[in-house]
Amino acid sequence: MDLEEISKLVKKNDSKIVYLVMDGLGGHPLNESGLTELESANTPNLDNLAKKSICGLQLPVGSGITPGSGPGHLGLFGYDPIKYKVGRGVLAALGIGFDLQPGDIAARGNFATVEKGNIVKDRRAGRIPTEKNKELCNIINQEISLGKTKFFVETVKEHRLLLVLRDENLSADILDTDPQQVGREILEPKGLTSDSDKTVEIIKDFLDQLRDALIDEYPSNFVLLRGFSKKPNWPSFPDTFGLKSAAIAAYPMYKGLARLIGMDILDTGETLEDEFNTLKEKWNDYDFFFLHVKKTDSYGEDGNFDEKVKVIEETDSMIPRLLDLDPDVIIITGDHSTPALLKSHSWHPVPAMIYSKQCRPDNVKIFGERACIEGGLGPRLPAKELMPIAMANALRLDKYGA
Amino acid sequence: MDLEEISKLVKKNDSKIVYLVMDGLGGHPLNESGLTELESANTPNLDNLAKKSICGLQLPVGSGITPGSGPGHLGLFGYDPIKYKVGRGVLAALGIGFDLQPGDIAARGNFATVEKGNIVKDRRAGRIPTEKNKELCNIINQEISLGKTKFFVETVKEHRLLLVLRDENLSADILDTDPQQVGREILEPKGLTSDSDKTVEIIKDFLDQLRDALIDEYPSNFVLLRGFSKKPNWPSFPDTFGLKSAAIAAYPMYKGLARLIGMDILDTGETLEDEFNTLKEKWNDYDFFFLHVKKTDSYGEDGNFDEKVKVIEETDSMIPRLLDLDPDVIIITGDHSTPALLKSHSWHPVPAMIYSKQCRPDNVKIFGERACIEGGLGPRLPAKELMPIAMANALRLDKYGA
Repeated sequence: MDLEEISKLVKKNDSKIVYLVMDGLGGHPLNESGLTELESANTPNLDNLAKKSICGLQLPVGSGITPGSGPGHLGLFGYDPIKYKVGRGVLAALGIGFDLQPGDIAARGNFATVEKGNIVKDRRAGRIPTEKNKELCNIINQEISLGKTKFFVETVKEHRLLLVLRDENLSADILDTDPQQVGREILEPKGLTSDSDKTVEIIKDFLDQLRDALIDEYPSNFVLLRGFSKKPNWPSFPDTFGLKSAAIAAYPMYKGLARLIGMDILDTGETLEDEFNTLKEKWNDYDFFFLHVKKTDSYGEDGNFDEKVKVIEETDSMIPRLLDLDPDVIIITGDHSTPALLKSHSWHPVPAMIYSKQCRPDNVKIFGERACIEGGLGPRLPAKELMPIAMANALRLDKYGA
Repeated sequence: MDLEEISKLVKKNDSKIVYLVMDGLGGHPLNESGLTELESANTPNLDNLAKKSICGLQLPVGSGITPGSGPGHLGLFGYDPIKYKVGRGVLAALGIGFDLQPGDIAARGNFATVEKGNIVKDRRAGRIPTEKNKELCNIINQEISLGKTKFFVETVKEHRLLLVLRDENLSADILDTDPQQVGREILEPKGLTSDSDKTVEIIKDFLDQLRDALIDEYPSNFVLLRGFSKKPNWPSFPDTFGLKSAAIAAYPMYKGLARLIGMDILDTGETLEDEFNTLKEKWNDYDFFFLHVKKTDSYGEDGNFDEKVKVIEETDSMIPRLLDLDPDVIIITGDHSTPALLKSHSWHPVPAMIYSKQCRPDNVKIFGERACIEGGLGPRLPAKELMPIAMANALRLDKYGA
C-alpha cells in the first residue's frame, strides 16, 4: 500500500515509537568462525528483545540492489526508494549539512583536469586532498560573481564539491556537463526544455568565469557538474504518519535526510551515549524518534570486522536504557548491509526486529542474520513495509474497509 | 498475475475445491502459555491435514493493514483489495443482505443531532438503540415520496442506516454530506461532474422532506450520508475461474459479498453442522464451495479467548466430514486475524493451508501461527495468490507460454 493510502488510515494516540538504525548492520562471515559481525557480537539485550519481537530480514531497495545511504534510509521510513529518487546534487547538500531552500538548484561537482581547452584528462584531478579542495572553493567564491543570482560552492571531500544556485525561477532540468569518460570533451550545459534557458545561461556564465579563476591551478583547472536537482516536494513523514518526529544523529547526511522528510533534528553529541541521553531528555516531546548509529557502517567500510563487532556490542549495552523509557514500539535494523568482507555497502538483506505488546512474536531467539531468516517478517521483507507494521503495532492505523 | 491474465489460463475438469474460511482465525498469545488461540486449540484433524498440505501465513491486504471483512474476503477470492474497492454504501447493503440492483445508488447513513438549522451536534444521535432506528425508518418510509424515484431506508444497527435510490441514470459520484466533525455545518449534496445533477436534486429533495419528517424526533432529527456507491461491475468469480461456485454462510455480510462476485448463495442453518450438511447435500451441484465460519471472529471481537478456542475445535471436528466428500483441493484460512487480546480485527498474517494430492507438502506438522512461518507458502503470502495456487492444485490452469 502506498504512502497516500496509508496516511488515510492514520489515527493518533499517545504511543511512542523508537526506530534504532544501526548503519550498515548486516554483515558476512569473514574468518573461520563462519559467523557474521552481528552473529559474533555478544548481544544479550538484543537477543532478549528479539525473543519478544517479530523478526526477519528486510530488503532496503530490492533483490540484489546495494543501496546508497539515501535510498537505504528512505525505505526504512516508508518511502519506496525506486519511486522517491533523490538527485545527486541534493544528496551532496544533505551530506554536508547544507540547508537547501525550496527553489535552490544543487549539483554535485568534481574538480577535474582539462586540457586543450575542453578535453577531460582526469575526472578527479588526481584525487586532490580535501585541504586543496577548500583552497580552490575559496578562490571560486572570491573570483566569481553571478549578479543577482546567489551561489554557494562548498567542499565535500577530496575532489568532490557542491554547487548551489539560488535565484527565482531556476530549473533543475539540466543535463550533466561531465562526459563520464577521459579523453572526451566537456559537455555544454543544456536544458531539457525552454524553461531551463535562464538556468543554462547562469551555469555557462559560472563556468566561463571558473575557467579564468582556476587558470593557474592545473591539474585542478576545471569543474565537472552532474545531478542538477531541487529539494523534492514529497509527502512529509510527520504528516503522513501523524507522528511528531525527531532525528537523533551525529552525521550531517542522516540529519539532512531526516530534515528533508520533515523530522525535527535534535542537537546531540558524537557518541552513542550522547544520543541515548538526548533520547531521554526529549522523550516527552515527540511521538517518534529516529536514532542513528553510524560506526557499524564506518568499520564495515574499513574492513574492520572486530571493531564493527564492538560497536554492535556497545549499542547492545544501550538497550536497557532504551527499555527504561518503555517505548510502545521499537524497530531495530540497518539501512543496508556493510560486510567487512566487502569493505562497502552490499545487497544482502538486513536483520530487523519489531517489538510491541501485540507484535505476535515468532520463534527467533537470537538477533542475527541466519536466525532472522525464520522470523515472522520473513527473509526478504521490503523495507518500506516496516513503517506500516510499526504503525499497526502502535495501534495507530484504522481498519481498511468496513 | 492479475485476474484477467489468470482467467486466460483457466481450463475445466471435474475437480472440486472447498474454501473453508474461519473468520478472524489468526490470533495472539494472551495468557502465560504464550500460545495463540489456534495454537491452544486441540486440532488433531487440522494438524493431520496440515502435514499433507502446503502451509504458510497470508496477508489479506498488506503489511500492517487491518482488513475490514470486505477487503479481507476479496483477497481470499483472488481480487486485489487495493484495486477492487467496495464503497461504504454497498458494504452497508451487503451487511444487511439488501439485494442491490445494477444502477442502484447506496449510501451509508447515520441518524444525527442537528441544531440551529445546520450545525451537527452529535454525529450518532447518542447512539440510539436499534429499535428506535427502526421506528425512525418507518416514519421516513411513510412520510417521504420521491415521485418516480424509488427509495429504500433500512435499519443497520444503532444509529446506522442504509439509503438506496433506484431510478434510471443515477450517479454515485456524490460527495458525503457528513462533515465528519461536530460543530460544523452539514454539507450540501454535491456531484463530482454534471452527470450527477439529477441525483443531487433527488438527494436534496430527500433531505428537505427528511427535515420535516424528523422535526419532532430530536435528538435523532437528521441523517448524515456518506459513501455513495454503486454495485461494482467486476469480473465475476465463476467466470474468471471457470468454477460453478456456491457460498455457504450464515451471516448476511458474507452472503452479500459472495453474491456480489457472482456466487450462488445456498440456504443453510445457523450452526456449523448445518453448513457442513448443506455442503454434503449440494456436493454434486458445484465445482467450488466457500464455507464461512463466523464465530471465530465474534469471540475474538468479544475478547473471549477460550470460546474462540472452542469454535476452532468445533470446526476441527467437522474436518472428517469434509474429507469424507473427498475434495480435490481444500484451502483453510481466515479473512484476517482477530486476536482476543485486541478485541478487534488486526494486521497479523493469517495461517493458511492448501491441500491436494499434488500440493508438494512442506515440513509443517501443526496448524498454528508459529509453525506456519516455516511453511512452503512463506510467512507473508499476499492473500490474492491463494486462488491461483488452489486452481493449479485442481489442475485447472494451463501452462503460461509455450
